[in-house]
Amino acid sequence: MEYRKLKDQDKDEDPTGDDLESLRGKALSVPVNPLSTLGGGPSNRQWKRKSIVTLALTILTSSQSILIVWSKRAGKYDYSVTTANFSVETLKCVLSLAFLMRIWKREGVTEDNRLSTTLNEVSVYPIPAALYLVKNLLQYYIFAYVDAPGYQILKNLNIISTGVLYRIILKRELSEIQWAAFILLCAGCTTAQLNSNSDRVLDTPVQGWIMAIVMALLSGFAGVYTEAIIKKRPSRNINVQNFWLYIFGMIFNAIAIFIQDFDAVMNKGFFHGYSLITTIMILNHALSGIAVSMVMKYADNIVKVYSTSVAMLLTAVVSVFLFGFHLSLAFFLGSIVVSVSIYLHSIGKPRR
Amino acid sequence: MEYRKLKDQDKDEDPTGDDLESLRGKALSVPVNPLSTLGGGPSNRQWKRKSIVTLALTILTSSQSILIVWSKRAGKYDYSVTTANFSVETLKCVLSLAFLMRIWKREGVTEDNRLSTTLNEVSVYPIPAALYLVKNLLQYYIFAYVDAPGYQILKNLNIISTGVLYRIILKRELSEIQWAAFILLCAGCTTAQLNSNSDRVLDTPVQGWIMAIVMALLSGFAGVYTEAIIKKRPSRNINVQNFWLYIFGMIFNAIAIFIQDFDAVMNKGFFHGYSLITTIMILNHALSGIAVSMVMKYADNIVKVYSTSVAMLLTAVVSVFLFGFHLSLAFFLGSIVVSVSIYLHSIGKPRR
Repeated sequence: MEYRKLKDQDKDEDPTGDDLESLRGKALSVPVNPLSTLGGGPSNRQWKRKSIVTLALTILTSSQSILIVWSKRAGKYDYSVTTANFSVETLKCVLSLAFLMRIWKREGVTEDNRLSTTLNEVSVYPIPAALYLVKNLLQYYIFAYVDAPGYQILKNLNIISTGVLYRIILKRELSEIQWAAFILLCAGCTTAQLNSNSDRVLDTPVQGWIMAIVMALLSGFAGVYTEAIIKKRPSRNINVQNFWLYIFGMIFNAIAIFIQDFDAVMNKGFFHGYSLITTIMILNHALSGIAVSMVMKYADNIVKVYSTSVAMLLTAVVSVFLFGFHLSLAFFLGSIVVSVSIYLHSIGKPRR
Repeated sequence: MEYRKLKDQDKDEDPTGDDLESLRGKALSVPVNPLSTLGGGPSNRQWKRKSIVTLALTILTSSQSILIVWSKRAGKYDYSVTTANFSVETLKCVLSLAFLMRIWKREGVTEDNRLSTTLNEVSVYPIPAALYLVKNLLQYYIFAYVDAPGYQILKNLNIISTGVLYRIILKRELSEIQWAAFILLCAGCTTAQLNSNSDRVLDTPVQGWIMAIVMALLSGFAGVYTEAIIKKRPSRNINVQNFWLYIFGMIFNAIAIFIQDFDAVMNKGFFHGYSLITTIMILNHALSGIAVSMVMKYADNIVKVYSTSVAMLLTAVVSVFLFGFHLSLAFFLGSIVVSVSIYLHSIGKPRR
């Protein structure tokens, strides 16, 4: 009953036809998901779905980091990162198609879940993939100015860039308290990652800072743009939207293989150096990629940032048990600040 | 005109006679300073006075730490700390008396500024001094469990204990956001003080933690109790209140000399090892002690805690220029968290 009612409202507010024009043209401002603005507060079903996808993203992101630590202890990376990325995109594409086929079997093919599309609809889908490609290529150059642990610290700038672009591009409001919470999230995550060598990041030359900021903006923009694309058609099935996003992900990652690893792939083969753990990592990446899309559909970029930040803390705690890591005082302090940030974000909702 | 009006209201609401009974007896709950609850928002004069005493406290506390660093670089401490504390109390007493004499000359002796007192009024004044004495004696024992830098870290527990006791004893409300801000203040100050050895504090044995918590509670209770005493008679001249507080400070510090340094004082003399810098430090301590009382009278313990926290950050920045210290990434992160905390405290005032 409840579900039916929501579905109908969903349908009623479905912006079809020429809605994409505005997305490509003058403004990227996106209507709030109609499901989230039903009068009288969020429905139970909506809250449940949002929680499940957020929880899934947190657990998958956390296990992703744990797998990376695990694979590093198992020995050196010997596979090509670009072919792994391509494999992830392909797997995501295949999984989306599999989910779709189950839905077609159950509900039949409708306007919302059909795979075929128009040039109008599909023309914005390559943009996030292209942005990520540029960001990943830049990543090779930033290491001339910053070491790897320093880069991990600088990556927290993503939090701020996502918040700023979320406000500017999606034109969604954050209250003063939520802005304060976002600054605290960035400071808290960085504090939790501090170690005895972290101060070196302060010696980063200006070029390094500029590249870090540009990369944070690219990454934030790609995330916010993906949300804009997915939210633009709220009733369109998420698996169709994912399918098209990942198709372009495959294409751009194929370009990356040609640019960076063409010789290696030709000489050693595509799957050279893949082990069991490589395969598990690819599967995990694919699932967390899908979880990110789901969070964009049913929640937003802010929830995604909080989710991945909590995943970072969770990883450290789990690593204590798995690898005998020690937690530092800085980690505890950072965790307190992140927890207060989450609390402030939840009580600081802007008044409408 | 404005001043006259405030003075009159002050007089009208002056609780005289039997008001002290309730302070000693059943409840320590203190009426909010009538000056701070004038209808239609705080007056300009009140705000100005509050700002000046807070600024003075911040600058004096900061220069106090700088003097300590300076004196350490000049050589080892060679004077007795208990005699220095006694000197500070004596100087504060003399200064309060000097301020009072100026007031008597200008305004004549009134009910509010006369030095003579009743046993009823004066009987609560020894309590803060006694609490500080117990805390200072405990300080000698905690170093069996924690090293000096670790103790600096643990002292940040004072922030939390002051907040909790402020709420419980003075029954003053802090909003949810202000509580969050207070936790952030504690985490931020600790973060700013992190260094490569800070993690050792996590190995503190249970006895060390218990002593640190007891000391934080003693220190917080002494601060909150002082505020209760001073605010209980809003129209009573602060210099008279200070005079009696410091008289008991002198008595309890004399006891400390007898307990800890009797032989040394007898053999080497009271002022043995005093240098110019020792004298400057005593003067500075005396002035900041008076500033603390002023903040208690015209603001409160929460303002005091924020003021001394900002002083800690200020000390570090000034030390960069004076002593060529380097600021760590942790210091920057801690400063961001403290800044956000101050912002949240100011916007998070509880609604009445």
